[in-house]
Amino acid sequence: MFKAIVSSGTLRAALDSVSVLVDECKIRLEEDELTIRAVDPANVGMVDLSLSAAAFESYEADGGVIGVNLTRLEDIAKMADADQLVQFELDEETRKLHIQIEGLEYTLALIDPDSIRQEPDLPDLDLPATVVVEGRDIDRAVKAADMVSDHIALGVDVDEEVFYVDAEGDTDDVHFELDREDLIDLSAGEARSLFSLDYLKEMNKALPKDGEITIELGQEFPVKLHLEIAEGQGQVTYMLAPRIQSD
Amino acid sequence: MFKAIVSSGTLRAALDSVSVLVDECKIRLEEDELTIRAVDPANVGMVDLSLSAAAFESYEADGGVIGVNLTRLEDIAKMADADQLVQFELDEETRKLHIQIEGLEYTLALIDPDSIRQEPDLPDLDLPATVVVEGRDIDRAVKAADMVSDHIALGVDVDEEVFYVDAEGDTDDVHFELDREDLIDLSAGEARSLFSLDYLKEMNKALPKDGEITIELGQEFPVKLHLEIAEGQGQVTYMLAPRIQSD
Amino acid sequence: MFKAIVSSGTLRAALDSVSVLVDECKIRLEEDELTIRAVDPANVGMVDLSLSAAAFESYEADGGVIGVNLTRLEDIAKMADADQLVQFELDEETRKLHIQIEGLEYTLALIDPDSIRQEPDLPDLDLPATVVVEGRDIDRAVKAADMVSDHIALGVDVDEEVFYVDAEGDTDDVHFELDREDLIDLSAGEARSLFSLDYLKEMNKALPKDGEITIELGQEFPVKLHLEIAEGQGQVTYMLAPRIQSD
Repeated sequence: MFKAIVSSGTLRAALDSVSVLVDECKIRLEEDELTIRAVDPANVGMVDLSLSAAAFESYEADGGVIGVNLTRLEDIAKMADADQLVQFELDEETRKLHIQIEGLEYTLALIDPDSIRQEPDLPDLDLPATVVVEGRDIDRAVKAADMVSDHIALGVDVDEEVFYVDAEGDTDDVHFELDREDLIDLSAGEARSLFSLDYLKEMNKALPKDGEITIELGQEFPVKLHLEIAEGQGQVTYMLAPRIQSD
Repeated sequence: MFKAIVSSGTLRAALDSVSVLVDECKIRLEEDELTIRAVDPANVGMVDLSLSAAAFESYEADGGVIGVNLTRLEDIAKMADADQLVQFELDEETRKLHIQIEGLEYTLALIDPDSIRQEPDLPDLDLPATVVVEGRDIDRAVKAADMVSDHIALGVDVDEEVFYVDAEGDTDDVHFELDREDLIDLSAGEARSLFSLDYLKEMNKALPKDGEITIELGQEFPVKLHLEIAEGQGQVTYMLAPRIQSD
Repeated sequence: MFKAIVSSGTLRAALDSVSVLVDECKIRLEEDELTIRAVDPANVGMVDLSLSAAAFESYEADGGVIGVNLTRLEDIAKMADADQLVQFELDEETRKLHIQIEGLEYTLALIDPDSIRQEPDLPDLDLPATVVVEGRDIDRAVKAADMVSDHIALGVDVDEEVFYVDAEGDTDDVHFELDREDLIDLSAGEARSLFSLDYLKEMNKALPKDGEITIELGQEFPVKLHLEIAEGQGQVTYMLAPRIQSD
């Protein structure tokens, strides 16, 4: 059983945060929240999303799992303005999801969850450095790095108390640095890891430019990015595996 | 003889409503109005436009017929802002149309009207259902249908007193429904016909989103769409032939 | 030695005016101004730019010459908002240019100036007609001409005291005329020359629509276009060679 009503804006924020990594996913319809966990085909980037029942206008579910085409679901959500309501009702027998937006009814065929890549476990890492920045700073760093390279180093300098980004190209380099004053928060610890820019560019698309992003970093370890959606009623965590430093 | 002055906005609304179906057309320069009738190469969609002399700042004509390249004429009209005036003067001898927009003079070579597809007759059909809707509702229905199918059924349910749109895809379906309250007007009669979405998508481009569209419908019959342009000084009628229902 | 701080807006106006003709150029870092002269590969269009030290927030230079990739430098400048400051510092030893924009540091590899096409001399021509127009009028003329032809005649009619533009296509023609009242200034002299529209279209991109452009014209002679950037602290001159009139 699944019946829910949610604003198009909240729905789109949730879907967008997952669709930057995968085209289809399983959605777990728990009693008090909706959750999605997914990993990209190369096993490099993961996302873990939870959207509390409180983020919905109304929400009823009993623990089922559905498989959806995310691109399609996003297209449907775009039929509504951000503050218009989207109504869901699952037909258990036909395995179709009925979606209503003011007079418009869309019947979406679901995907067999067993045919979708298995959900990953996001490991509990004890990462030494934590940085809180505005989304727009990540956006600037990613765009600048993209001008010179296809990978990017994220690091924290404990002595200088700065969070930095490095990208080294064949001829040109980019270095971006934020100190305590520029950062929302910094809990310094020795950290530097190299990442594929392709993945970070995709994740960056789903980061709110004016929202707070918490970055957990280690020494040649995965990075974790945490953000809130739906005015704090939803949580998204990205995890990205490091590339081996070749120098 | 043809001499006229018209606002770029009015000119563009008139040209756009025809250019969604054909690239070139005959324009009849009657004494009291300008008229265009055209049918697409496949004989599926027709348009009938009349623009009263009152829609012009000034208008003089004596019944001639000219052939024009619509795309070119639209490009010229776009050189002016919506409220700027466009001045026409036909040179009968050279068969060129002189078009002036504030210091800019464009000399347009006309097309021999005999080389243009013959103008269609729009049959006087006695269609049982008439629906008046806002352009934005047609826009929504067409865009939603386009997500799942390449054809679309338009119908009226006499008992429920609703106008509806159905599109059936291979896996997903779309159903859109407007009742008396959502509609500007409804004169119910049993009606349901299937149409090619390609044509309706093109016609939709020329429908004002905030304007009234009158839809005449029948049972496996052509649909007619009526709209006004130029603040009621111009009338456009589209007619679209039905597709044979294959079920 | 070169150290300078300039607003992104001023930097971009300067770079854009040169990049419409060439992808890389030499920049002369004189004591009291920065200058660029460049000619396109076909030797048809030239640009001469000078940006006074007063256009900068701070400026120190001692006459060096650097070679730069303009496209790359424009991309970097775009990382900043128009009123954000861009900081330059030349590292003479590594021949790299350090560019800073609020915490972001870009290290740009320079190009050996000897590998860049030689700077042209813009001849001192004594052209008989001078016209001062708004950039938007050149924009209109160029766009209209582009609808019918790939070349464009610019001329001054001494008797009528008008500046005119003519473009003749295979079937359609465009004529654009500005009289004393439409022009900011006119110093009439017999002048008419034909130019490649491709070059004028590119130069047009760098002309401020609401700025004054001074046009110097002759009889089958090159045209010169003068404009100011950086609120008068920078000067740009374009010179475009005429095409041979074939009629």
